[in-house]
Amino acid sequence: MKNWTEYARGYGLRAKGASRQLALVSTDEKNRWLESAAAELRRQAAALIAENAQDVAAGPSYGLNAAAIDRLTLNEKRIEGIASALEEVAALPDPIGEIIDQQSRPNGLEVARIRVPLGVVFFIYESRPNVTADAAAICVKSGNAVILRGGKEALYSNLALYRLLSRTLADCGLPKDAVQLVDTTDRDAVGAFLKLKEFIDVTIPRGGKTLIERVAAEATMPVIKHFDGVCHVYVDRTADLAMAERILINSKCQRPGVCNAAESVLVHRDIAAEFLRSAGPALEKAGVQVRGDGRVRELVAAAKPATEQDYRTEYLDLILSARVVDSLQQAIDHINEYGSHHTDAIVTQDDESARAFVAAVDSSAVMINASTRFNDGGELGLGAEIGISTDKFHARGPCGLRELTSYKYIVEGNGQVRQ
Amino acid sequence: MKNWTEYARGYGLRAKGASRQLALVSTDEKNRWLESAAAELRRQAAALIAENAQDVAAGPSYGLNAAAIDRLTLNEKRIEGIASALEEVAALPDPIGEIIDQQSRPNGLEVARIRVPLGVVFFIYESRPNVTADAAAICVKSGNAVILRGGKEALYSNLALYRLLSRTLADCGLPKDAVQLVDTTDRDAVGAFLKLKEFIDVTIPRGGKTLIERVAAEATMPVIKHFDGVCHVYVDRTADLAMAERILINSKCQRPGVCNAAESVLVHRDIAAEFLRSAGPALEKAGVQVRGDGRVRELVAAAKPATEQDYRTEYLDLILSARVVDSLQQAIDHINEYGSHHTDAIVTQDDESARAFVAAVDSSAVMINASTRFNDGGELGLGAEIGISTDKFHARGPCGLRELTSYKYIVEGNGQVRQ
Repeated sequence: MKNWTEYARGYGLRAKGASRQLALVSTDEKNRWLESAAAELRRQAAALIAENAQDVAAGPSYGLNAAAIDRLTLNEKRIEGIASALEEVAALPDPIGEIIDQQSRPNGLEVARIRVPLGVVFFIYESRPNVTADAAAICVKSGNAVILRGGKEALYSNLALYRLLSRTLADCGLPKDAVQLVDTTDRDAVGAFLKLKEFIDVTIPRGGKTLIERVAAEATMPVIKHFDGVCHVYVDRTADLAMAERILINSKCQRPGVCNAAESVLVHRDIAAEFLRSAGPALEKAGVQVRGDGRVRELVAAAKPATEQDYRTEYLDLILSARVVDSLQQAIDHINEYGSHHTDAIVTQDDESARAFVAAVDSSAVMINASTRFNDGGELGLGAEIGISTDKFHARGPCGLRELTSYKYIVEGNGQVRQ
Repeated sequence: MKNWTEYARGYGLRAKGASRQLALVSTDEKNRWLESAAAELRRQAAALIAENAQDVAAGPSYGLNAAAIDRLTLNEKRIEGIASALEEVAALPDPIGEIIDQQSRPNGLEVARIRVPLGVVFFIYESRPNVTADAAAICVKSGNAVILRGGKEALYSNLALYRLLSRTLADCGLPKDAVQLVDTTDRDAVGAFLKLKEFIDVTIPRGGKTLIERVAAEATMPVIKHFDGVCHVYVDRTADLAMAERILINSKCQRPGVCNAAESVLVHRDIAAEFLRSAGPALEKAGVQVRGDGRVRELVAAAKPATEQDYRTEYLDLILSARVVDSLQQAIDHINEYGSHHTDAIVTQDDESARAFVAAVDSSAVMINASTRFNDGGELGLGAEIGISTDKFHARGPCGLRELTSYKYIVEGNGQVRQ
């Protein structure tokens, strides 16, 4: 067995050194790199596609199905997408150096809080190779060095992308180790990185719940994460029922395999009959299997019985748990108890219900009369996203450039001493 | 041995329940409690002093010296101080419900980030009983339930204060379990609390480095902490030397036992002779022992040799390590390598040096021409402080009400669905 401790430490030392330089780099220098890397991606498209072909060829041996192999595949159009994404990050405002707030104290001290990078990000993710470039762009633009650890299914693609990103960093006069890729897919190596709290300031795991649970349990440094998204749509007594149905179908079906898709619908008893008699068949038509309590099953012929466990399940599939509730409060209590504090929506025409719901539902994003699918960095105006957090500490909801920063106090005086 | 897991879980469950109620309580209700508790403290002063007398009497058996027993002792004046501190927290703006930012998206969604409480704080501290009331006030005002775990030396005082705070919470219609006190000082019990990540959102340890290291190693939830304060004063080539001496003496001597006191002075070689020939005797007169490198010892007759370890040591005493540096860059490198990222000051008349120093020194607070002692919640305008963080994640520097909060996204639409 390899000495993964020394291996990981090497990455940590290089990343820490790069992060110290990167913290002092100007916005223009960072943007110039993003634009150079985008141009180089376009120039090297054929070579990247050739490297990617090795991953695609090996896909079946990793048990990837056709859809997974499609997601893994690079072509001219997808490389153009990766390049454009880098340019979009270049166009975003640089959070570093931002004066968060400032004040003059009675003794004449000028106190400011200035935004600074976190330092070093360890980013663990699964197959799609575009994530490699996206994550590198977000980390470097926010002044952080990043250690990337992608999935084994994309190793050749990731190595080729990493080499291009690192080389263009050096060409632009930035520290090449601002972006590093872990060049093994040995699982034990990840454990060694998770112990490096003196070098890594935050770990961001993105992937299945098992991966994230392992990272959260082993990491000695802070982690930005969400385990799952058990997201709800609550249809209130006063809801516009046509709107509620549209929001429910969109939340469930628009992309069922993602974390902000709805997994559960709660319906106020006063409108349950009217709502479910229309929504039930609409869900069936959309291919959704409903699992409901007794009251739901009375109204939706095709519904199967829901177990207690159903209400805690992230299906990531065309399955929806459903429950009739007696009150807004019961809906709130259900969501706080069974949900995963990710994204929950209320459909209502009553301002007071909306206010009570958003105040009491303890989730990273609470939607009023909108699809749960909007809890996303792009949709909420962050521009780019490296993950979604359901924790309350540091960052909650979608995490973009700003969420990869810290701050320092800068205090300027003219000789003040404390009395 | 008691089943500390069940014991801690009881506290956790009660705190979580209280925190859900507390998150919905108005500013007026919280302030009314703070004012009632202050009034009740004044009314119950004699009874509190009687309880405190038991701790004071037991002090010598815990090995407390006269100074420690003095810090532990309550009298009318100190109880008035505790009551006034509660009123000062009442006067601070309530962070909860603050709209951090908001925007309208092109599709008509209104997106806002609203400040919410973290939830439940586990606060571990040592002897002085005023901290019990201060911490309870800061936590409740920021909408958080708190589990207090004070030192054994102050148990009777803390129990009396806790009973008063909890009773007045109930009298004001707030959840009485918003403030709980761990009623054992068994060290194993702390370990059980540190495992309760499903109930406790953040742990804040305040005390000696050994305590904080234990908490950081065992805690399964986020921790707000600093291990120590190895704070520097760097006297630049262009410093006003009289100002530099005043700042150095204040940083070192005004209260040597606290984390933001200076432990090390770095002096640019160009002004080392002139500065140290005056500052050396001034430090000696103030009772400070200097431990320096060869160049320092040539200029300060009384200086003893500094070891490598001296430059990493938080003396918390009238001892100061000293080094002559060849450049601003060497000072920055020394501070980032030997310091503890707490508070570091530059004394300079040169704006460019000041800018380079604040950009490159990676500390929670960087001072220009001011004493390190100003890194303090009160001095930097936070109003009240529950601790100082040298971490970059979540909160850095002094932590007051705002640092005990998170946020949620609230997204309001009129039927938007994702395309």
